[in-house]
This record gives sequence, structure tokens and C-alpha cells, in this order.
Amino acid sequence: MTQDILLTPGPTPLPPQVREALGRPIIHHRTSSYRALFKRAMQGMQTAMQTSQPVYCLTSSGTGAMEAAVANLLSPGDAAIVVLGGKFAERWQSLCKAYGITVVPIPVAYGDVVDPQAVADALAAHPKAKAVFTTLCETSTGIVNDIQAIAAITRKSQAVLVVDAISGLLADECRTDEWGIDVVVTGSQKGLMLPPGLAFISVNARAWALVDRATCPRFYTDLRLYKKSLADDDTPFTSAVPTVVALDEALKLILQLGVPQMIQRCALMARATRAAASALGLTLFSTRPSNGVTAVTVPGGVDGKQLTKIMYDRSRVMVAGGQGDMAGKIFRFAHMGFISPEDVLAGVAALEGALAELGYKCERGKGVKAAQAALGRQAAAAGATR
Amino acid sequence: MTQDILLTPGPTPLPPQVREALGRPIIHHRTSSYRALFKRAMQGMQTAMQTSQPVYCLTSSGTGAMEAAVANLLSPGDAAIVVLGGKFAERWQSLCKAYGITVVPIPVAYGDVVDPQAVADALAAHPKAKAVFTTLCETSTGIVNDIQAIAAITRKSQAVLVVDAISGLLADECRTDEWGIDVVVTGSQKGLMLPPGLAFISVNARAWALVDRATCPRFYTDLRLYKKSLADDDTPFTSAVPTVVALDEALKLILQLGVPQMIQRCALMARATRAAASALGLTLFSTRPSNGVTAVTVPGGVDGKQLTKIMYDRSRVMVAGGQGDMAGKIFRFAHMGFISPEDVLAGVAALEGALAELGYKCERGKGVKAAQAALGRQAAAAGATR
Repeated sequence: MTQDILLTPGPTPLPPQVREALGRPIIHHRTSSYRALFKRAMQGMQTAMQTSQPVYCLTSSGTGAMEAAVANLLSPGDAAIVVLGGKFAERWQSLCKAYGITVVPIPVAYGDVVDPQAVADALAAHPKAKAVFTTLCETSTGIVNDIQAIAAITRKSQAVLVVDAISGLLADECRTDEWGIDVVVTGSQKGLMLPPGLAFISVNARAWALVDRATCPRFYTDLRLYKKSLADDDTPFTSAVPTVVALDEALKLILQLGVPQMIQRCALMARATRAAASALGLTLFSTRPSNGVTAVTVPGGVDGKQLTKIMYDRSRVMVAGGQGDMAGKIFRFAHMGFISPEDVLAGVAALEGALAELGYKCERGKGVKAAQAALGRQAAAAGATR
Repeated sequence: MTQDILLTPGPTPLPPQVREALGRPIIHHRTSSYRALFKRAMQGMQTAMQTSQPVYCLTSSGTGAMEAAVANLLSPGDAAIVVLGGKFAERWQSLCKAYGITVVPIPVAYGDVVDPQAVADALAAHPKAKAVFTTLCETSTGIVNDIQAIAAITRKSQAVLVVDAISGLLADECRTDEWGIDVVVTGSQKGLMLPPGLAFISVNARAWALVDRATCPRFYTDLRLYKKSLADDDTPFTSAVPTVVALDEALKLILQLGVPQMIQRCALMARATRAAASALGLTLFSTRPSNGVTAVTVPGGVDGKQLTKIMYDRSRVMVAGGQGDMAGKIFRFAHMGFISPEDVLAGVAALEGALAELGYKCERGKGVKAAQAALGRQAAAAGATR
């Protein structure tokens, strides 16, 4: 008689329309009706990714699209600037190293964001760097980088800007074309309200010039093959067909609400969560918090791993703990995709209960009340209730 | 008021249990209950792949696992023997070339199989070749190679044997450990009765010795990461969770019937299809036909593309045409996974109708009768009815 309430930053809950689509009898992908669906879905992805550039669809986790970016843009021995500051930012570094790319790292403390000036300085010091790799929402620390400011710098340089928007898309603003981001990668299991298994990459003309010259070996991630297939509304390798069919359904929901409204909905839930944390005397881990995920510092004297375990055991509310060095030190509430304001209230209530059980002194109900107030004040304006 | 009857070699129809599992509320993958499910599924895959070696699960199409084999076993400049003879055999060649591997091709005519002696000769001529890449069922031509004979040769050499069993697994016999196949790759959307989106690779100790030394760049396909994660019943990158949950359901069906019985079921349907083709005066394209897919030569005077189109338009039966150079020259009936003897009869009836419409002279009903007889004669013994 229980059902998990997922407040985790992927997988996120699935709308009933998506679940229904996943369970349909499978259709063949080399048919005109599937091609029409795929074409519509890729056009929807252009809207979601705020770009008029083509979007390529890989059957992989988000990391597959990150690897596609590295392997298609660069050649062994090239230099690339990598903005650090979290587990996923570090993945860019691991990927570059795997492909023999010389990494110019920009160190960033966990919980902090990069100073855009540091990117400008790195580009000035390494004028031959071919790419800057960075992250919109760093899922592991709950920050959102100032991509607009970074893009204003990179578009004046020789380097292309590649942004990991896997957890940030549809939660934090990401104006791909308007800001001049050359490559954006994202995944299915966050703001898109789908299961894991699809990844997407947009590539503008500036970046394509690199794709044609890059010599890193690639096949499954070779964007030249995806480009050729997209001309026929197809993919070079068999797609995860039901997830594409479900994407078409998810995009109907997203486009009906609107991309700005999707983002506002997340922003509202993020504000409510931050208000609750503050009311409970807790501090945020992030200096520039994302709308997609709120990272809170575990208060002194409280066992962070027990905290998330108790929230799940007592209330079936699943939040994420800290990853790697941050394990036990932070916990994270996601707000992306189909997560609802009601889920946020359930999460805050579960948090209050777990904190009390672990001996943390706070007034029960104060967090929920603050979250309610934050949601109530702005729910009508943002159209965020369902 | 219509539903497609898929007789295509992937995607194949989904059992209701699989569709139900795909549509469930999503669960989080970093939980003990999911880990237990994943562990059970990977053990089931060992049974399905007839190996006691670990099986690694990638979220990708089958090609992702093929790429994993190339990139993890070899280093740029290594030589590898590639058995040709079809579109998917040629994919091994494309993959090897993408990674700077020197390919020693063994040419095989479309519709024919490799003479195992040709593999022995190639190994004798190229004693430094590190791997032999071949295919169990070549989906594009409907043949099954004699993997047992090839493995008897490769196990006496320095080279490891890598078999693409993407469409062959659970249709044609593939005794991984008993025959001494070092690496087997497969995909989810064929005999496993799942949607596309997962790929699997088994690697024995002989092959692992190469993985540890290989220098091809790889990250998403890096089997060292998958090995490390498998120790915790996990994957290094977020899996397509619902497809893994559905795999657990599909494996229940497969293991309940039994792996030999799954293969016999396909063999029975293949025999029935071949009997029907013969009764209609048609000839097989394949010299050594697979149980997974039957390729039939389009008779003279008949437009092959119209033939498959009419079968679909009139009867909603979808068979595959020929790929590449074989387009319009052959058509292919699949027998794998959840495809049933009843689907085969519907397919043969649709074929008869389309042939008649295109002016091919044959007695209506003769093909269906031959298929019925083939199924009836042996259905009880093979336990193939459902």
C-alpha cells in the first residue's frame, strides 16, 4: 500500500500519458507513421532546447551524448577548457582524458559556480583551446552556472561552448541560440519526464565545422551518421522506439504548458524548498542555486545518510544524498519535470520528521508552512498547480 | 480497427507482461530492490547467453555493444579478421576501421556462410591478428554461420572470437562457454522480446586479458567501468530502468519455457516458413538458413518492394525487405522472440495474397497448408503453441 515519491534528480516521475505510451504495442521504426512521429518529436526538442539547429537523438544515457560532443568536436592532442565543480563537470574531464585531449581545468569549489572571468582568462592563456566544456545545472551540488555570461565570452573566441544541460534543461533557462551556445546535450530522464535511455545533442554551424575535421574515433556516437539519417527523419541505429513514442507524448505536455512555464514551475518549487530549508534553520549548499535541484547542507550533529534513509523508510519520499566526497554532507531535493508542488510539500514534511527523529531541534510544521506560503503566493501567477 | 503483425527481425512483438512492466511507475536505480532485480536479470542473461561469465548491460542499441567489443579488445594498429557476408557483418569492418584497426576481411557472398577453413587460413596468414569478428545470424541475409566450427579453430589460436548474436540469440544455438566463444554481444529487441534500448556483452577471461591492455579510447563503452559497477549490481551510467524491469519479466517467460525450447520454437516456425515458400515455388536466399529469420528470393517478374508493401497494406503484416544491394530482391520473415506460429500463418497467407495480386502464378492456400502441416507435425514435440 505504498508508492515511492521520487524527489530525485533522475529518474524523475513519469506522467500517466508517458507510461501509457511506453506500454503500447511496439511499432516498427522504418514506417512513414513512425518517421512522422520522430520528425515531430525532434521539432519539439528544438523548441525545448531553444534552438533552430537540428537536434540529434542517441539511444544512450546522457553520458553518451557528452561523449558524442567530445569525440565529434576534437582530435587527440587538442586542448579543451573544462569548468570543474562537481561530479558531472568532472565527467567532461574524464571524457576528454579518455580521448587524449589536453585538459585545461578551471577549478571550482563544490557548491560554488565558475566566475565567467575565469573562462575569459583561460581562453586568453590558451588561445588554441578548441572547446569550453561546462554544465548548466550541476546535479551533484545544486548550482546553476551563468551560461549566458560564459557564452558571451566564448562566442568572441575561437572555442566552441559545450553545455551539459542534462538536468538543467526545462528547469533553468538555457537560450541556446539567443545566448550563442554551440552545443547543448541533454538526457531523457529529467525535465523531459521520460525514463532514462535517450540523449539529445544540438550542434550549430560553428561546431559542425569542427565535426568535419575531428579525428577522434567514433561510430555509435558519430554525428555525421546522425546528420545523414535525420534528413530521412531516422537514426543510424535502432532507437529505443517506445521512449521516442513517449517523448512525443511528453512534448505535447511540455509545449502545451510552454517552455517558460515549465521553467517557472521548477523555479517556484525551488523557492518553496529553499524557504522551507531556511525556516528550519538549514543552509543551502549552493551559492547560485539551480531551479532543478536544491542542495542543502546536513546540519551539524545529524547523520546525513540516516536522514535520507529515514525519509524513505517512514514516508517513501526519496531524495538524493551527496555523491562522492559530499556523501553524508548534503542532501538534494529535485524539482524537475513531473515533480509537483504537492511532492515538494510531502518532501518537506518527511524532512521535518526525519530531522526530529535524529534529534535536530526545529519547530515541526514550520518548514511546510514556509513552503506552502511560497507556493501559494505565486502558484496562480506561474500556473504551476495541477 | 487494425493492429500490425510484426514479422520483422527487430523490433519484435512485446509480450503483455513486458508491456505492463514498461508502463509501471518508474523506480529509482540506486535502491536495494532495484539492485536485486538487476542482479537477477543479469543472472538470467547468463543463462540466456549460455555462459558462466559476467554479462554487462549497456543502454544502447546492439551496435553500442559491438563498439564496446572493438574498443575494449583492440589497440590502434592491431589486426583483426572480419568475416563478411551481410550488412551487419560489414558493421564489424566499419567499427574496426573507425578505431584504426587493420582489417583482414574474409569475403562471403550475400546469402552464403563462411567456410570455417577460410577462418583457419586467415589466422595462419595473419598470426598476429588479435580477434576474429563474426556473426551468428546475419539478419540481412537470413544465414547462420557455423560458430561451433569457427570457435574450434579460434580457441587453438592467439585470437579471441567475437560473435554478433544480436538477432541470433535464443533463435540459433549459441553455446558460448561450451564452444569457447570469447565475447558474445546481443541486443534487447530480438529474441529477448523487449523494445530496443539495451545491449549485452559477455566477456571471458581470455578476452579480459586484452581489455586490460587495449588502448582504443572509450568511456561510455569502457568495460572496466561496467565490471567495477557490476560488483555492486549496478551500471556505471544510468540504465534504461523500465527496460531492465521489463527484461526481468521477459526472462521469467524465457527461463520458464527454457532456452532450448525457445530455440526449438523458432526452428519450428522457420521450418514452417521454408515449407510454405517451397510449396509456393519460391527459393530461399540463404544457403544455411537461420532459425531467426527466413530470407526468400523475390521471384522473377515480381516487384519486391510492392510485394512487402501490399502485404502490409492489405493484411497489416509487416515483413522486412532487402537492405542495401538486396533491396527489392529478397524479403525476410522473422521467427524470433514472441512471434508465434499463428503470426507465421498470417504472414504466409498475406504473402500468397500479395503474390497473386502481382501476377505470380501459384495455388492459393498451398503455402498456408504446407506451413500448417509443418507446424502440426511438430508443434506438440516442440511445445511451441501458445
